[in-house]
Amino acid sequence: EQSKKRVNTKSDSVIEVHANIDDQSGEQLSFTMKKLFDFGVYDTFFTPIFSKKNRPAYQLTVLAKESALEDIILIIIKNSSTFGVRWNVMQRKIMQRKFEIINTKHGQVKIKIGIFGNLKKVSVEYASAEKIAEEKNLPIGTVMEEAKREYYKNLEV
Amino acid sequence: EQSKKRVNTKSDSVIEVHANIDDQSGEQLSFTMKKLFDFGVYDTFFTPIFSKKNRPAYQLTVLAKESALEDIILIIIKNSSTFGVRWNVMQRKIMQRKFEIINTKHGQVKIKIGIFGNLKKVSVEYASAEKIAEEKNLPIGTVMEEAKREYYKNLEV
Amino acid sequence: EQSKKRVNTKSDSVIEVHANIDDQSGEQLSFTMKKLFDFGVYDTFFTPIFSKKNRPAYQLTVLAKESALEDIILIIIKNSSTFGVRWNVMQRKIMQRKFEIINTKHGQVKIKIGIFGNLKKVSVEYASAEKIAEEKNLPIGTVMEEAKREYYKNLEV
Amino acid sequence: EQSKKRVNTKSDSVIEVHANIDDQSGEQLSFTMKKLFDFGVYDTFFTPIFSKKNRPAYQLTVLAKESALEDIILIIIKNSSTFGVRWNVMQRKIMQRKFEIINTKHGQVKIKIGIFGNLKKVSVEYASAEKIAEEKNLPIGTVMEEAKREYYKNLEV
Amino acid sequence: EQSKKRVNTKSDSVIEVHANIDDQSGEQLSFTMKKLFDFGVYDTFFTPIFSKKNRPAYQLTVLAKESALEDIILIIIKNSSTFGVRWNVMQRKIMQRKFEIINTKHGQVKIKIGIFGNLKKVSVEYASAEKIAEEKNLPIGTVMEEAKREYYKNLEV
Amino acid sequence: EQSKKRVNTKSDSVIEVHANIDDQSGEQLSFTMKKLFDFGVYDTFFTPIFSKKNRPAYQLTVLAKESALEDIILIIIKNSSTFGVRWNVMQRKIMQRKFEIINTKHGQVKIKIGIFGNLKKVSVEYASAEKIAEEKNLPIGTVMEEAKREYYKNLEV
Ligand code: NI
Ligand code: NI
Ligand code: NI
Ligand code: NI
Ligand code: NI
Ligand code: NI
Ligand code: NI
Ligand code: NI
Ligand code: NI
Ligand code: NI
Ligand code: NI
Ligand code: NI
Repeated sequence: EQSKKRVNTKSDSVIEVHANIDDQSGEQLSFTMKKLFDFGVYDTFFTPIFSKKNRPAYQLTVLAKESALEDIILIIIKNSSTFGVRWNVMQRKIMQRKFEIINTKHGQVKIKIGIFGNLKKVSVEYASAEKIAEEKNLPIGTVMEEAKREYYKNLEV
Repeated sequence: EQSKKRVNTKSDSVIEVHANIDDQSGEQLSFTMKKLFDFGVYDTFFTPIFSKKNRPAYQLTVLAKESALEDIILIIIKNSSTFGVRWNVMQRKIMQRKFEIINTKHGQVKIKIGIFGNLKKVSVEYASAEKIAEEKNLPIGTVMEEAKREYYKNLEV
Repeated sequence: EQSKKRVNTKSDSVIEVHANIDDQSGEQLSFTMKKLFDFGVYDTFFTPIFSKKNRPAYQLTVLAKESALEDIILIIIKNSSTFGVRWNVMQRKIMQRKFEIINTKHGQVKIKIGIFGNLKKVSVEYASAEKIAEEKNLPIGTVMEEAKREYYKNLEV
Repeated sequence: EQSKKRVNTKSDSVIEVHANIDDQSGEQLSFTMKKLFDFGVYDTFFTPIFSKKNRPAYQLTVLAKESALEDIILIIIKNSSTFGVRWNVMQRKIMQRKFEIINTKHGQVKIKIGIFGNLKKVSVEYASAEKIAEEKNLPIGTVMEEAKREYYKNLEV
Repeated sequence: EQSKKRVNTKSDSVIEVHANIDDQSGEQLSFTMKKLFDFGVYDTFFTPIFSKKNRPAYQLTVLAKESALEDIILIIIKNSSTFGVRWNVMQRKIMQRKFEIINTKHGQVKIKIGIFGNLKKVSVEYASAEKIAEEKNLPIGTVMEEAKREYYKNLEV
Repeated sequence: EQSKKRVNTKSDSVIEVHANIDDQSGEQLSFTMKKLFDFGVYDTFFTPIFSKKNRPAYQLTVLAKESALEDIILIIIKNSSTFGVRWNVMQRKIMQRKFEIINTKHGQVKIKIGIFGNLKKVSVEYASAEKIAEEKNLPIGTVMEEAKREYYKNLEV
């Protein structure tokens, strides 16, 4: 195992934008989410919340780079029922990432390798595994596990 | 403590009606809930669910007596966006209930006493406690705890 | 408004299948959902639940016609981490449905009309509205509302 | 449609106060919410969270203007079981709002119109629609849609 | 891969017991869950629900064998605030299970193997993996994946 | 009741760290939570969120003192599947705390007393009450209520 110093970490900032929505359907909110991902935010998600006057509601959260703020506000205001958004800046640390293609007996699967100081992590890219799982009629877990097994087998050689 | 046989339990049946809703706002769903309670169901609630096509949604549940089924179906179909409901019959056991008025130093609070075999339970009626908490500007917990303390003090005498 | 008797309702049964999953990721569960919809179930959804030993988990629910039970069990067992499923039969009532195409100034939108006794309901088909919202760069709500407005305008003529 | 510059947006700040609660019932939490709304916060809601030691819990969130911070802390400490609160300041942008009364065939409904740069949004005020829905025994959606239809019909003239 | 007929499946029934709880804290509900697991139910979990009068609440669900019904009702009535429970019987199919001990380089891990017709599934027992992850200061995922890798390596020999 | 000035409040700051996780099971996330509590964070919890591509997911939140940031990031990166974390600093106000042992007829229970200006709050320590509830086979609520009753009885003397 590695023992480098904690040098290869990446630190930056990210905005977290929130809006509370109790007057739009989940069906329509999926469109809001789509528009935000099409624009290129880091992430978007809905949190179920218990709101006033017996209303089940959602909190929309958007994570993005600070320079995208103005665009994101416009997308949310335009594509949801909310009359306002709130946000703040958060600090962020992320692993250095690189990608590899793994040959498994069922096909090629893409993996993502993260490095953070002396920590290393391997993650199978869902989209490439899903493609094979569909083609070969296999459980997604089978394909993802095989990709990881193959990756570790290669390391041992 | 009591040691009677398990005789005073009440067993009956109840219908549980479900509808999944992804195309109506939480604001409007509060109206559906209101109509169901106005009609006189035992209980109604919404469960947040992760539905198809990235849609956050709700499962509506209604608990009521079997004879109310037809009315409940009409209320849901009329007052929500769903195109259908499903239901089944469940067995039910409930505690025998009686009510008492407790005199606390802040006012009168209603309590509910449940008996089930040799088990006994005391519950403070929220509405009566809320009234006093509002009038006397007290935390609701303070009022509810005082009612229970007074109840147990009386038992000891 | 109509005043026919409650004749045109449809009553049948549906199975509700459940499995609790605490040992599979949400990413992989989206695959399970996909396989179930590809097979042709009525609906599938995940409910967040608080499970034993501090485990956040999901309850998978599948709604389908009874004759599909064996296939659904196999799909779930194969495509999720669960070691078992449970189910029961529920009664169901659904509105009679028909579809219409509505011409709006932005394009054609499909609507679904439901009839249940003397109740009538109009719902805009999301997929057709989303297509126009994307093409014309409009909020989905705008497109859906216009389709409904147009539908009611035609009724008045 | 309008094409003014993005001038009429309003930017200010808001505090977001949080407290985690695992030792108070939902019934009592509704009282906490009531006290906060009675005071005049912008919004309050509960988020279900999976807390330590197998405890289902809630995160209380309060949105309010910064000057209200001290009062809000006192209301929460007094009216909930929490021993502490945390908060930060968020930036906020909201649409310019104005209100109109719409005459529908079922009665008068209040709508809220939001302007944000060249974006415009119309929202039906739930309370006024609910009043009519109750009086005329109509689905809330029917009343809200009619108000919007009437609004757009007037615009076309 | 196997190609036996679907013979080795196990079919039985299970009761699903529900109670809705809005007047007890999550902290105390963890005790209710503990008592139910101590008794020996199959599973117990809480679902967050949006209940009447602005109350965030929980639905308690218990899965157990039918013969345990009376005991479970008593445990719930005694150890929670509810005044009643409802239940029904569900059919159940579960995989045939056997257990194996896997030797990994970090220690012994227990795995569960499920057989259902020609479907086979391998699951790492969390408790045994957690023990090693704690002792060797490893991520739980690392230990679980290694156990599966070792299992599949042995199969290949 | 007391009428001191608001002097005995404690104000400090806390970091709130977030990570979104859609590619790890709830079972494994319980391990992440354990590692964070073993390290000594103030609190950790999971929020169910509706993430992209039909994925049910969780938001991990960690509350801790600022000086612990680097350690917490390492614990999360090592013990969960996430490739990054985000955080910000929040202000915090907490009640002054002291502890007392209460003698009840069933045994000794620990209570926590909080003071905040002229507000006072009493909370029963769950762990000590659970021990007695287990030993004496009592509902947890019974033990906790008795401890509070005893505390208030002593005050009256
Ligand atoms: Ni936030
Ligand atoms: Ni294979
Ligand atoms: Ni159900
Ligand atoms: Ni008092
Ligand atoms: Ni069910
Ligand atoms: Ni238009
Ligand atoms: Ni926050
Ligand atoms: Ni009308
Ligand atoms: Ni159920
Ligand atoms: Ni290793
Ligand atoms: Ni946050
Ligand atoms: Ni006692």
